[in-house]
Amino acid sequence: MERLSFAADVAFVPRGDLLEGVTVAPLSAPMAQGAPFQAAIFRFAPGGRIARHPATDPQILAVLEGSGEVSGANGVTEPVGAGDAVYWAAGEEHEAMSKGGLTALIVEGEALAPFERREP
Amino acid sequence: MERLSFAADVAFVPRGDLLEGVTVAPLSAPMAQGAPFQAAIFRFAPGGRIARHPATDPQILAVLEGSGEVSGANGVTEPVGAGDAVYWAAGEEHEAMSKGGLTALIVEGEALAPFERREP
Repeated sequence: MERLSFAADVAFVPRGDLLEGVTVAPLSAPMAQGAPFQAAIFRFAPGGRIARHPATDPQILAVLEGSGEVSGANGVTEPVGAGDAVYWAAGEEHEAMSKGGLTALIVEGEALAPFERREP
Repeated sequence: MERLSFAADVAFVPRGDLLEGVTVAPLSAPMAQGAPFQAAIFRFAPGGRIARHPATDPQILAVLEGSGEVSGANGVTEPVGAGDAVYWAAGEEHEAMSKGGLTALIVEGEALAPFERREP
C-alpha cells in the first residue's frame, strides 16, 4: 500500500492557457508519460474555468463539491452540481466554469466509455 | 455531451459479500464488460467496510469525504481522510472501513500506476 495525497496544498497549476483559476492534483500516472488513462482532481476557484477546447480523448467530469456550468459540442451551458457528471466524446468542443467554486474528478482515456444504467 | 449521475440515489449494492454497508455508483463502463479500467464512487455508511481480499488489478482509493481506516499487504490499518488516497498493487490483500462514514473514488485497471510527485 502506497499513500498518496490529492489535497489542495499539493495541487499545481498546469502550464498552458486553457485553465483559469483551476488547480490540478493528479491521482494516477499521466497519459503524457504513456499511461492509457488518467484521473485527477480539479479545483475551480470562484470564477475559475476551463476554456473551450476539443477533448483530446473521451473524458468524464464528475462534480464532487460545489456547482458550475458546462457545455459540449452545441455550446449550450447546463448547470451541474455535486453528484452530476458529464461525458465528452473524443474531439468534442467543451467548456467548464464555476462562479462559486467547484471540485471535480476528471477521468480520461482513449477507451473510456460512460457507465450506462440498465433499467430494471 | 452526455449527462450522468453518481448521486446517492442511483447507487446500488453490488452482489457478493465483500461489501458491507457500502453502495457503488459507477462513472465509467465496467471492466466486467471489457473496459480496460473503471472508476466508481463508493459510499460507506457508518460501520461500512470492504472486507479483506486481494486486489484484482492495481487500484487507487481516494477519500473525498469523511474518514476511515485502510490496510494493505502488511495488515496494519492506517487512518485516511479527505484528500488522502492509497494505491494497492495487483494481488495485494487490502481492506477499507469507516466508523463514521466515508465517500471515496476507486479507480482500477491493469495499467494503473499512482502519480509520482516530482520534487522541484
